Amino acid sequence: MDTQPKPVDPLVLFMPSGKRGRFPVGTPILDAARQLGVYVESVCGGRATCGRCQVEVQEGNFAKHQIVSSLENISPKGPKEERYEHIRGLPDGRRLSCSATIQGDLVVDVPQDTVINAQVVRKAAVDRHIDRLPAVQLCYVEVDEPDMHKPLGDLDRLRHVLEKDWGWKDLLIAPYLLPQVQGILRKENWGVTVAIHRDMDTSRPFIIAMWPGLKNEAYGIACDIGSTTIAMHLVSLLSGRIVASSGAPNPQIRFGEDLMSRVSYVMMNPDGREAMTKAVREAVNGLIGKVCEEGGVDRRDILDSVFVANPIMHHLFLGIDPTELGQAPFALAVSSSMQFWAHEIDIDVNPGARLYTLPCIAGHVGADAAGAALSEGPYRQDKMMLLVDVGTNAEIILGNRARVVAASSPTGPAFEGAEISGGQRAAPGAIERVRIDPETLEPKYHVIGVEKWSDEPGFEEAAGQVGVTGICGSAIIEVVAEMYLSGIISEDGVIDGSLAARSPRIFQHGRTFSYLLRDGEPRLVITQRDVRAIQLAKAALYAGVKLLMEKQGVDHVDMIRFAGAFGSFIDPKYAMVLGLIPDCDLANVKAVGNASGTGALMALLNRDHRREIEDEVHRIEKIETALEPHFQQIFIDAMALPNKVDAFPNLSKAVKLPPRQVDSPESVAAVAATGDAAPRRRSREERAARRNRD
Amino acid sequence: MDTQPKPVDPLVLFMPSGKRGRFPVGTPILDAARQLGVYVESVCGGRATCGRCQVEVQEGNFAKHQIVSSLENISPKGPKEERYEHIRGLPDGRRLSCSATIQGDLVVDVPQDTVINAQVVRKAAVDRHIDRLPAVQLCYVEVDEPDMHKPLGDLDRLRHVLEKDWGWKDLLIAPYLLPQVQGILRKENWGVTVAIHRDMDTSRPFIIAMWPGLKNEAYGIACDIGSTTIAMHLVSLLSGRIVASSGAPNPQIRFGEDLMSRVSYVMMNPDGREAMTKAVREAVNGLIGKVCEEGGVDRRDILDSVFVANPIMHHLFLGIDPTELGQAPFALAVSSSMQFWAHEIDIDVNPGARLYTLPCIAGHVGADAAGAALSEGPYRQDKMMLLVDVGTNAEIILGNRARVVAASSPTGPAFEGAEISGGQRAAPGAIERVRIDPETLEPKYHVIGVEKWSDEPGFEEAAGQVGVTGICGSAIIEVVAEMYLSGIISEDGVIDGSLAARSPRIFQHGRTFSYLLRDGEPRLVITQRDVRAIQLAKAALYAGVKLLMEKQGVDHVDMIRFAGAFGSFIDPKYAMVLGLIPDCDLANVKAVGNASGTGALMALLNRDHRREIEDEVHRIEKIETALEPHFQQIFIDAMALPNKVDAFPNLSKAVKLPPRQVDSPESVAAVAATGDAAPRRRSREERAARRNRD
Repeated sequence: MDTQPKPVDPLVLFMPSGKRGRFPVGTPILDAARQLGVYVESVCGGRATCGRCQVEVQEGNFAKHQIVSSLENISPKGPKEERYEHIRGLPDGRRLSCSATIQGDLVVDVPQDTVINAQVVRKAAVDRHIDRLPAVQLCYVEVDEPDMHKPLGDLDRLRHVLEKDWGWKDLLIAPYLLPQVQGILRKENWGVTVAIHRDMDTSRPFIIAMWPGLKNEAYGIACDIGSTTIAMHLVSLLSGRIVASSGAPNPQIRFGEDLMSRVSYVMMNPDGREAMTKAVREAVNGLIGKVCEEGGVDRRDILDSVFVANPIMHHLFLGIDPTELGQAPFALAVSSSMQFWAHEIDIDVNPGARLYTLPCIAGHVGADAAGAALSEGPYRQDKMMLLVDVGTNAEIILGNRARVVAASSPTGPAFEGAEISGGQRAAPGAIERVRIDPETLEPKYHVIGVEKWSDEPGFEEAAGQVGVTGICGSAIIEVVAEMYLSGIISEDGVIDGSLAARSPRIFQHGRTFSYLLRDGEPRLVITQRDVRAIQLAKAALYAGVKLLMEKQGVDHVDMIRFAGAFGSFIDPKYAMVLGLIPDCDLANVKAVGNASGTGALMALLNRDHRREIEDEVHRIEKIETALEPHFQQIFIDAMALPNKVDAFPNLSKAVKLPPRQVDSPESVAAVAATGDAAPRRRSREERAARRNRD
Repeated sequence: MDTQPKPVDPLVLFMPSGKRGRFPVGTPILDAARQLGVYVESVCGGRATCGRCQVEVQEGNFAKHQIVSSLENISPKGPKEERYEHIRGLPDGRRLSCSATIQGDLVVDVPQDTVINAQVVRKAAVDRHIDRLPAVQLCYVEVDEPDMHKPLGDLDRLRHVLEKDWGWKDLLIAPYLLPQVQGILRKENWGVTVAIHRDMDTSRPFIIAMWPGLKNEAYGIACDIGSTTIAMHLVSLLSGRIVASSGAPNPQIRFGEDLMSRVSYVMMNPDGREAMTKAVREAVNGLIGKVCEEGGVDRRDILDSVFVANPIMHHLFLGIDPTELGQAPFALAVSSSMQFWAHEIDIDVNPGARLYTLPCIAGHVGADAAGAALSEGPYRQDKMMLLVDVGTNAEIILGNRARVVAASSPTGPAFEGAEISGGQRAAPGAIERVRIDPETLEPKYHVIGVEKWSDEPGFEEAAGQVGVTGICGSAIIEVVAEMYLSGIISEDGVIDGSLAARSPRIFQHGRTFSYLLRDGEPRLVITQRDVRAIQLAKAALYAGVKLLMEKQGVDHVDMIRFAGAFGSFIDPKYAMVLGLIPDCDLANVKAVGNASGTGALMALLNRDHRREIEDEVHRIEKIETALEPHFQQIFIDAMALPNKVDAFPNLSKAVKLPPRQVDSPESVAAVAATGDAAPRRRSREERAARRNRD
């Protein structure tokens, strides 16, 4: 009887996934990774020719994991690996995991930046680790030659070896490839690399591309089609590396600045839909050319693509008439995720490339909001997260693991500088930061493209080059917030005319007063109407947020994420002073940039993220704020700075807020007296129109 | 305690399927049929509006089934059914099975010819019952209107009701339809008929077409693309009725009469493949126009299509270069069945229509042979069936339930009248039947387009109109067989010159003798070379059959099926006298017409037949006859009439065969002496070339 304890197999820990397991001595590291479900790329199928399966052994005593990892615990390089190193070169410390075997305990790092064909290495535009599980995989195989006695077709034998070597069952083939199969197979003596798409909506995996011999690179694009800007990442599907990121204006602007005017264009012009579809697709193709040029990539090597967009852009991009989205009940043609051959949408990449669109949440909460939700993942954590993407229309998502609710608010274009005197889009020359001295009521400001503040010596000279052209969204928020903090405007948003005695910057203008931000050319003034426009916009947003908080039964949120370009530039503190967002610990308020694009990127690099957001979108409850009975009261309360009724305890710690006024009949009257900016209930049509502007 | 026997539910028997079961009183007959797996069409989903679910009760005492079926055992017409009858009319005895319920024992006939929109009723071109289970089903549904609180897209709600009403899960949609969904749904107040394809190679069912309101007809085409002729059936997918059948010449003939010259054309001309692909697709589209016109059908109502073809036609039709099929090892690009959107193959029908091609068996045994196998089903029965399709290349299938083997034989074009002096294709003016008086050696013949035999009074006048232009395949077989039976040629095929003394019809011609079939203009003579050409062709076919019989270990076959046009015209008796086919009871030799086309039709009307032939093709063993070591000996033996070694006991009962010669060195020498017709082993290339000519 064998009473000796059996030798324990070596323990192997893979980083960054943290997956671990014991494997017999001699197991190839690639096999160990596969058994644990750690994704290590391999194109050549263990022939040590593609170099994609590189790993790095971490040396040292990893006490936390109880592993002492050393280079002695990995097999020395064998002849195949040495041949690869000789021909292609292998960076210091890197090993081919198909050839290197386990000899003892190991901590193995799976690098995310394995570069095979030397390329310009660019800094990743998205600073986050995305576990890779791309929909497209490259597989090199060597196909049996034809045999008269077993008259299987060339494609059938290719399928056979793909099943034998890689386990692919029931493979289909992209129709365009069928006539090419025989030529490609014969070009490199029956050695061939196929690209297999394993996330087809049709269930069965597809051969989508083929090359003679070993093909060692494949790319994907993640694209966010915004009303004004189209943003794109070009990524290596084999390493996950972002090769290039860029943007281009949406040429549909020539059909209408805002979304609603584009819908109108479709309704008024028989070929309007077609023209806009063509315009946006051409722009996407142009942008693909741009990122490919930047990255030194052939667009024919793009095999997969993921798109997000707001509902109207989504529909126009897919060739669907968006008219229904312009009127109640705002019916989407389709809300679920969709898949196409890229060429079906006229996207000029590899002819076998696929195109995936994220699901839309609702008629005004599109695939872009779904992308942002995927990126920030309120449903992945326990804290109550508020995720807002502020544009002409604001998408609001509030929730945690237990429940997520979403709404859209027609904020209008005020935050983008429209409807504001002196307002403009963020561009060089635009004022982006404003401070007002509460004693002197004198402002200072910061201009995009100019390093110095306006009160610093040499500012005028520096500003002379770009000019000071207007006020952009972030500064609009800051100037109104600063006017409130310095007492120029009251809680109700009324510019205090009595201060005209104290400072010439406050001056009468018809029945109301204005604040002179900058004298000169152009003269930049904040009028009472401007303040009202901002109040209306922020009240619309806040009311939406508040309704969602009520649905969730919470009186505060734990964290706030600002998505979108606007969110990247505004100062959370001022947004809170204004009452754009509810009170929250400022440390937990973060701008997350183009979260929609990041979501698209995640769905591109990991197909599990597609399932994740498809499932989550079904769970997200859509609230139609305009149909909620007390929307008007919440809206009116939200007109006040920061709010008529809600407390801002966290904000009060960071900023000295003016004392809250007692609600008097006069103050209500004052609000009501300021003309067209009154917070009356807008008509259904107006709301619809506003909501669809972005 | 209830000791009374429980009442037994009524027994219902469905014809022609013969499926039976007991169902509670009150069960709708449609439900009963579904539970038993009896296919009864229904588009409206039980609303009694489509009229597709008609059945007929058979009255009487069906002793064999122990059922007394009477009209009293079916419920009387209710208001819905009466409304349908009032509006659309219901033939005598017909009932709507969605509305009629079971009240007692019933024999229910499910008619295969339910005609809803009155059309010209044509005789079915294929005289066989095909159980219907088409890939395409029409389903009428009423979709929920959009709801802001549940912001599912229009397509998503359509999918939802299709799952709820019809059980369809995971439906996808043909991309071209997506932009049309919203308009179609709104046109008839959210009532819509969708066509669902449930046999997609991609596994998940697809919405392939949509119409506002109730759409009550859909069609399919079954097409056989031959080298010379394209044949097509147009069929109702809802009733299985053949609406029109027609044919058209294959325009590729202008690139080359036979297949091998078409392959050469591709090899010699850079755009050759493309030109031939375009030509055959255009011809198919033209033929679709023709059958649609005949049937009074809109080609946009064609939703499914099935194609069979020989390997080279199959490849050219699908846009694949056939060059590999022109040389050993005759590699098919793909042997398995394929599916496409019809528009991907440029077939102009409904934009959502599908296109299915049957699998190919081998490089020379194509999807047409697979179609014939499906039609005749050697593998469905126990008897040893020989299935031959004789063209320039003969496809031979031999087998039964246990095992099926297949081969191709390069018979050459002799049977089609080429390589024969005075030979021509079957057409008016061609001699098609020949008899020779064994006493006088005088012939009589029958001409296509002329009613009388040549020895009947008035023949010359009648023949004068069409002319007597040549000898077609069936007559070539008969004349050689009759020459043998009348002693003009010996068992070895040598024309007996000594008979020149007995009849002026035998005369010398160089070193050999000839037989004068017809004097006049043109003068039609059977030369020694002609006899040799026929001997070579028939020996090639017989040798293939014999090798397959050896593989099967049988010395006779139980039944013979002749497929193809040639098979329809030849007299099995003469084919056997010639030794074209092995001995068999003549009662079991049958011409089956275009069996390939019938197979295509079966695959069109019943998707189970697709699975059947896909599976069977994998089981069929392909024999490469040319690689068999004793092919040459079998071939030489088969040169004799009917055969040097094989007995023809069944034939001997029907025909008095000349006594068999003792094999003498002289007779072998005589065969060898007849120049180029000697049965030498042909070179690989020659064999390849011949094999691919048809």
